[in-house]
Amino acid sequence: PRTHTITLLPGDGIGEEIMAATVDVLDAVAARFDLTLSMSSALMGGAAIDATGEPLPAATLDACRASDAVLLACIGGYKWDDLPRASRPETGLLALRKQLGLFANLRPAKAFAQLEGASSLKDEVVNGVDLMVVRELTGGVYFGTPKGIDTDPATGARVGYSNMVYHDYEVQRIARVALDIAMKRGKSLVSVDKANVLEVSQLWREEVIKAAADYPEVALSHMYVDNAAMQLVRWPKQFDVMVTGNLFGDVLSDCASMLVGSLGMLPSASLGDGSGPGVFEPVHGSAPDIAGTDAANPVACVLSAAMMLRYALGEFPAADAVEAAVEAVLDAGWRTGDIMSEGKTLVGCKRMGELIVDAV
Amino acid sequence: PRTHTITLLPGDGIGEEIMAATVDVLDAVAARFDLTLSMSSALMGGAAIDATGEPLPAATLDACRASDAVLLACIGGYKWDDLPRASRPETGLLALRKQLGLFANLRPAKAFAQLEGASSLKDEVVNGVDLMVVRELTGGVYFGTPKGIDTDPATGARVGYSNMVYHDYEVQRIARVALDIAMKRGKSLVSVDKANVLEVSQLWREEVIKAAADYPEVALSHMYVDNAAMQLVRWPKQFDVMVTGNLFGDVLSDCASMLVGSLGMLPSASLGDGSGPGVFEPVHGSAPDIAGTDAANPVACVLSAAMMLRYALGEFPAADAVEAAVEAVLDAGWRTGDIMSEGKTLVGCKRMGELIVDAV
Ligand SMILES: CC(C)[C@H](C(=O)O)[C@@H](O)C(=O)O
Ligand SMILES: CC(C)[C@H](C(=O)O)[C@@H](O)C(=O)O
Repeated sequence: PRTHTITLLPGDGIGEEIMAATVDVLDAVAARFDLTLSMSSALMGGAAIDATGEPLPAATLDACRASDAVLLACIGGYKWDDLPRASRPETGLLALRKQLGLFANLRPAKAFAQLEGASSLKDEVVNGVDLMVVRELTGGVYFGTPKGIDTDPATGARVGYSNMVYHDYEVQRIARVALDIAMKRGKSLVSVDKANVLEVSQLWREEVIKAAADYPEVALSHMYVDNAAMQLVRWPKQFDVMVTGNLFGDVLSDCASMLVGSLGMLPSASLGDGSGPGVFEPVHGSAPDIAGTDAANPVACVLSAAMMLRYALGEFPAADAVEAAVEAVLDAGWRTGDIMSEGKTLVGCKRMGELIVDAV
Repeated sequence: PRTHTITLLPGDGIGEEIMAATVDVLDAVAARFDLTLSMSSALMGGAAIDATGEPLPAATLDACRASDAVLLACIGGYKWDDLPRASRPETGLLALRKQLGLFANLRPAKAFAQLEGASSLKDEVVNGVDLMVVRELTGGVYFGTPKGIDTDPATGARVGYSNMVYHDYEVQRIARVALDIAMKRGKSLVSVDKANVLEVSQLWREEVIKAAADYPEVALSHMYVDNAAMQLVRWPKQFDVMVTGNLFGDVLSDCASMLVGSLGMLPSASLGDGSGPGVFEPVHGSAPDIAGTDAANPVACVLSAAMMLRYALGEFPAADAVEAAVEAVLDAGWRTGDIMSEGKTLVGCKRMGELIVDAV
């Protein structure tokens, strides 16, 4: 059997529950497709802070580096919200992305026919939506310098600043990832910026145009971020692949998630240049309010594992099988609370995982 | 009769048409309420570039400064998109805001019962939505320094950067505007930031909290911008007043506009410290593709005039009368193309203006 090493980062809140369900699903596909998935857990986020004082301990980073892929559930919670920024769960996540060079964050938003009615948008607006947000993940205002908060010692006046910065090569490489994806999909790419106001966006737009010259088959267009947020809500079916910077991608992908009806259904993949492992994680957070109640939806984590099988491990039939199993369970009417509707059967996180295992 | 001086900036695209309709409405309320509205037009945006080479000629700025209020239709168009940034229409708009010190941009999003069905969101999600986005307008990444695009002379490598900057006093004054508005409304304020990642947002949050200490009756909460974009689509009725920075406000207010169904219905007010005139303008752009075809919706501009009557000129009954006239025309089933639906009567921009005049 082929062997793959996977580091699991259950993190905080509902992380343990959804990770447990996902590991069961991975064990099931491994059995069916004769794979050896060597999985071991490491501490990350609030759990790591509690145990070691740091959100991303060196041992965790080493374990990630030594594996073929990283599966992350979710991190954060009220408990750690008042810590100084350097020792907060989110800082660990940002460091993980940066340390592993994960510059490309793929966030698909695909409407599930089975969840018709789950979105706050009208059915005819979201039916058949199938788009991919390609978000730059290691640059922009998240990592730019100078940044800080200065206090004038004389007056006490304060100023905060965070520089939004992009280098040409950063834009080039994310643009090429998006263009490659567009070639495998509908050959249409919308680059989102604020080039009518921001210098950094002007550079972004120019570099995207340059990169696209090598992809004559891809229809490239540009949209301002304010308009893009609006168009995602107005008529999302106009989009195939979108590419944008770190901050705009953060906002637009969350906005796009509403098209599907629940954050609980949305996976993501964070990829680098291929020299190290990618990180696969649900788009949702750690939902501390429902943690430990078996109410979480494990599907986003399970679908993240499917993305891992496909993008990191090259196990395409296994990836397809996991996705098909999720569809089958939805077809059969099983629902967690976040996607529950009339006539369907409500199940908890654990049971949802078992159902997906059975379908695999 | 009381006299008010108003500078009109019709701008570009559909600007002339919607401004003409709005001026007729202003003439009608002036007659009814015995006001003297002394209105004169000045060049701004692309129209000004064509005539003078500059998007905001000094004569226009002087005229604005000398008046009690400024009514702006819309600016921009493909024609000027390839000009260098300094001489583009948008740059004139940014300069107008900065020069007049218009730090507070009020963008109400109120669902019209008459337009039920116009939104891409479900009726039960948007029915009764009534929120106000208070956007900081003269700071943040729009105006921060350093900014620019540098090229390494040796390698040709390029980097673009735009600094997101807020000073404590900038946050204080916009927070107080939002808190004052919240006191007159539902006493609930959501401040939107990205304080889990950005230093500038951390300062923002701290200063908002300080300002709110003087408003013990207002329930203040904080939301990350990604979540805010999602919540606006998921369940917008949770919001009363939102306050946020320049860029986040740009995106969130456009997103919020979709709740109402059409950008063509949305007014805005940009206010300073009261020492100079405010600028009142629709949220929509200049729609060059329909310019000159009498297809534009003048309502956003008319409602901006109503905001002007209320916020700048203190003519409350006149403001109420304009808004009531718009409601009456919608009640009677008249619709421009953007808000047309089955069983209603389609009219052009000019006729829509006349109908509102009649209703006044
Ligand atoms: C938790 C936070 C730092 C993170 C981000 O902003 O990138 C999250 O919102 C995400 O989108 O993965
Ligand atoms: C035209 C553009 C500069 C402007 C902005 O970003 O402020 C517009 O989008 C707006 O919201 O008024």
